Amino acid sequence: MKLVSYFFRYISVVLLLIVSKANAQNIEAYKYQQSDILTIHSNVLNEDRKIYIHCPKSDSTDLNQQFPVLYLMDGDNHFELLAQYADYLSRSDVGAIPKMIIVGIPNTDRRRDLTPTVSTTDYSGKPDSSNLMKPSGGNGDFLKFINTELIPVINKSYKTKPYKIFAGHSFGALSSINCLLLYPDLFDAYIAVSPSFWWDNKYLLKLADKKLKKGATLNKMLFYSDGNEGGTDSFFHSDLLTFDSLISNKNLIGLHSIYKHYPTETHMTEPIIAYFDALRFIFKEWENNQ
Amino acid sequence: MKLVSYFFRYISVVLLLIVSKANAQNIEAYKYQQSDILTIHSNVLNEDRKIYIHCPKSDSTDLNQQFPVLYLMDGDNHFELLAQYADYLSRSDVGAIPKMIIVGIPNTDRRRDLTPTVSTTDYSGKPDSSNLMKPSGGNGDFLKFINTELIPVINKSYKTKPYKIFAGHSFGALSSINCLLLYPDLFDAYIAVSPSFWWDNKYLLKLADKKLKKGATLNKMLFYSDGNEGGTDSFFHSDLLTFDSLISNKNLIGLHSIYKHYPTETHMTEPIIAYFDALRFIFKEWENNQ
Repeated sequence: MKLVSYFFRYISVVLLLIVSKANAQNIEAYKYQQSDILTIHSNVLNEDRKIYIHCPKSDSTDLNQQFPVLYLMDGDNHFELLAQYADYLSRSDVGAIPKMIIVGIPNTDRRRDLTPTVSTTDYSGKPDSSNLMKPSGGNGDFLKFINTELIPVINKSYKTKPYKIFAGHSFGALSSINCLLLYPDLFDAYIAVSPSFWWDNKYLLKLADKKLKKGATLNKMLFYSDGNEGGTDSFFHSDLLTFDSLISNKNLIGLHSIYKHYPTETHMTEPIIAYFDALRFIFKEWENNQ
Repeated sequence: MKLVSYFFRYISVVLLLIVSKANAQNIEAYKYQQSDILTIHSNVLNEDRKIYIHCPKSDSTDLNQQFPVLYLMDGDNHFELLAQYADYLSRSDVGAIPKMIIVGIPNTDRRRDLTPTVSTTDYSGKPDSSNLMKPSGGNGDFLKFINTELIPVINKSYKTKPYKIFAGHSFGALSSINCLLLYPDLFDAYIAVSPSFWWDNKYLLKLADKKLKKGATLNKMLFYSDGNEGGTDSFFHSDLLTFDSLISNKNLIGLHSIYKHYPTETHMTEPIIAYFDALRFIFKEWENNQ
């Protein structure tokens, strides 16, 4: 009798163990590939700047490998997205782009840094009395910071190739086009997702017309786009069409450019598809040579 | 004289400090929002399974908020991408989709779990003698694991709403369509990015024709797509066209479906744009009601 009782107790314990094993749960943290935050002091901007950096996984068979670098404005918005694209699209079984370093620049004062002129007019060209436009016009300093302080630090600290891309959205795209016009040699490729051409009574469209000489040489890649920002008759769309005509009419030698219009995307959903398309465009030839 | 010497030494130290401050660098780790790895034992599959889970940032003003869940196959490939989309597209300043939980299921034996039948024929229907097709046909068990083991654990451990999406690519898309045909009530929306309809002499196309009754009710969302897998005359593309015709001809009541063809994307770049378009499609009405 005692033996039978022991037997059932033993069986119960075994069953209990089986049941609890079925529900056993063990939670651990998912490990994302590391990215860095670098804090550098900018003498040009007179402030400390945090910079986000995402590098390809190191390859033990080629520790000296160097990588092109994409400098991204609005790092607070799209850094993780671009890091994700860089990692996935450069996988050996995907092979759409080379491995690259993403450098995200989060904002401290977005309007100050990303707009080319001091302006107090709003998107419709009317005076803006709300002070929403202040401060502005610091893009010259911001580009100087990137050129003389940020790029040297990145080149010193990471395994960089000379090939560099400059990418931005909205005011960031304004800054990207402004850089192309003022310092075209700073980068090899420029991405401008819905540039805010309305800024300061279309200042940048006028500057583009002035700076880009008909038939001049400009050995660059250029991607620009807009979404559905207020329908097909929006100023965003008409400004992009104006810019696209201007680029066509200038017959620039060596310029590889593409204009994409995304009628089903908003100003804020557009960067997801536009940054993907831009990377695909810039590295199409690289992909075809794999 | 000594005083002058001290003064210059003092000035030198101050200058040195200023210069070194300009180059001061401080590196810390970038903090990604946490995701979990949950290990659960599956009695159905007779193995431990790791599951990746990404939740929305908790909102201190609404700690009891519940979220729809997207179950993603090939979690090893596209979990971080979907987590990124879920976070970004649900931001209050983007507002394209609701906040949601992403559950990524990485593979242990991909072909076994994601194919609906045991088959030893290759993509062209010819016998495959290389054993590359073994093991296969375990999708019934895999769907049973998801239904009876995984979903209950997720519902118990996380703040879930009943709304669920099932998403897969290639063999994963085969599994998504197989689930829609066999257990349509398991999910509310199905995403099939380049389903491998070639499997087992187009078994799933035949099953779709048999299971989907003309004029029947199927209150579901369905997204399916293909890329440029071997050009416009590829079997991928012709199979998708066949499936698309079949869906149209069945006149299913309540089904909201969309077919997207991406002629410039490869089999491996397509998921980036297709998953984005799929989320935009599924939540279009939700977005319009914001």
